[in-house]
Amino acid sequence: MQTDFTLGIDIGGTNIAFGLVNNNGEIVYEGNLKTSEVRNPALLPELIEEKLKDHHFNNIGIGAPSSNTFSGMIENAPNLKWGVNIPIVEYFENYFKLPTKLTNDANAAAVGEKLFGAAKDFSEFVVITLGTGLGAGIFINDKVFDGKFGTAGEFGHVMVEKEGRPCGCGRKGCLETYCSATGMVKSIALLSSPNKDTSPLLTLTCPTPQDIFKAAENGDQFAEEIVEFTAEKLGYWLANFACFSNPEAFVLFGGIAKNGENFRQRVDNYTQKNILNLYQGKVKVLSSELHHKNAAILGAAAYAKY
Amino acid sequence: MQTDFTLGIDIGGTNIAFGLVNNNGEIVYEGNLKTSEVRNPALLPELIEEKLKDHHFNNIGIGAPSSNTFSGMIENAPNLKWGVNIPIVEYFENYFKLPTKLTNDANAAAVGEKLFGAAKDFSEFVVITLGTGLGAGIFINDKVFDGKFGTAGEFGHVMVEKEGRPCGCGRKGCLETYCSATGMVKSIALLSSPNKDTSPLLTLTCPTPQDIFKAAENGDQFAEEIVEFTAEKLGYWLANFACFSNPEAFVLFGGIAKNGENFRQRVDNYTQKNILNLYQGKVKVLSSELHHKNAAILGAAAYAKY
Repeated sequence: MQTDFTLGIDIGGTNIAFGLVNNNGEIVYEGNLKTSEVRNPALLPELIEEKLKDHHFNNIGIGAPSSNTFSGMIENAPNLKWGVNIPIVEYFENYFKLPTKLTNDANAAAVGEKLFGAAKDFSEFVVITLGTGLGAGIFINDKVFDGKFGTAGEFGHVMVEKEGRPCGCGRKGCLETYCSATGMVKSIALLSSPNKDTSPLLTLTCPTPQDIFKAAENGDQFAEEIVEFTAEKLGYWLANFACFSNPEAFVLFGGIAKNGENFRQRVDNYTQKNILNLYQGKVKVLSSELHHKNAAILGAAAYAKY
Repeated sequence: MQTDFTLGIDIGGTNIAFGLVNNNGEIVYEGNLKTSEVRNPALLPELIEEKLKDHHFNNIGIGAPSSNTFSGMIENAPNLKWGVNIPIVEYFENYFKLPTKLTNDANAAAVGEKLFGAAKDFSEFVVITLGTGLGAGIFINDKVFDGKFGTAGEFGHVMVEKEGRPCGCGRKGCLETYCSATGMVKSIALLSSPNKDTSPLLTLTCPTPQDIFKAAENGDQFAEEIVEFTAEKLGYWLANFACFSNPEAFVLFGGIAKNGENFRQRVDNYTQKNILNLYQGKVKVLSSELHHKNAAILGAAAYAKY
């Protein structure tokens, strides 16, 4: 029997990760591109093919932010600098002559968690991706929920502060300007604290969330305040989001979520503290059980055959 | 052929409306009770039977706030003063010996709008009930969406102001403390304005939203500010809620929404102004096409046979 391979692609604001996935959900080959180096998305199929060399595959699944499953387009993605409507499915189908499916990167992650990760036992859950932005992959009745227009689950663009931080979408106060990798880094400049002046974070030219978590662990009070601020805001809004789909669990996924049990526990505490009594004790906050890039590739590939 | 009648009951924070609905969706008999006069909900079947006299029916559908379809209980309803868990389905099944189904009052309204009202042409929509509280009945894939635990769609308890108005649920700043009949009346006392002192609203001992709308129409500036404040807040949050289920339409339903095209237009303007560009032009804001009590009775009855 010939093995069937799927090319799974995860397009993020910072990296484009891809891999070949076999029938058993194993990644047999993996590659990477910097998103900023892909100036013209029409050339992405070619750039990926160069890295894949002689590997063969039979179909393609793509996960990307602000994606419309139905139109096959990336629409107005605030974290990609590729223009308004990118017909990404068309680019890949024309180039490889293979069936190609597109979904939200967060939906791809959700499929990955359902098949291989923390959401195996749930039929109703929400994966919260904490990367360059904040996304949500919603499972309803054991299926990815796309919404009428293929673009449900833009939790990162719920405006949580009326005159808050400016967002890439052109509006203000969106949740992802606070709770995401870029949001955490923005907090270094934007939060005020008596402990700020002496924080080692202020000496870094290009700090990352990992720097913030590490500084907090090493006893830096300002870094600790940023971690707590992020967890509090995220927990508060997960509590609010429970009022929508009444899920069994939220699964934290991506860069920030990789900072382990301590962060998850803080978010969970704020979620349970703020949740409507009707939902009390019914909504879990879990960490991804998959290395985030792998999960997104696996999810995109799984979605292609879904 | 014998006609089949369903008893539809709409339990609200202020009124309990009920009616007998025939196979054609016509209400052949209607009745009403004040919620405050029903001290013990176990006696509700008997109180309704007294009013129904000799009318016969074959099954029962109940719409009530904070209802759990799966357990048949009203759980922690902040706007009903009946205690924590009310086994309302059990009360009715034991008394009438007839099959009884319970759903959220907003879900009942959504079924009503789908079958007989403004949502006939939509498969994905949200009915927003603006009564004593604020509820949401969500249609997904042409079906009422209940969530894993039977209690999805508690939009009224999304906390939209961090240290906002105290809510019946025990938390603060819930949307329904601003955008509901009681929320609008609270605004008379809580909003400040240079036009407040001279407003005729201040002379009323027990003002209603209708008084506010009427005063605004008659040129009272403070009343006008309350209407605008309510519409702005509601529109802003409908724009945010679109980030969840990506619906085709929101249908405004209940007491406040009956104040016609002018209020709907204001809410719509604020929704479109604040919506993510991805959703622009894709989400309608409509008014209920049914007299609200009837729709809720029809919806509860329809849900029973759904």
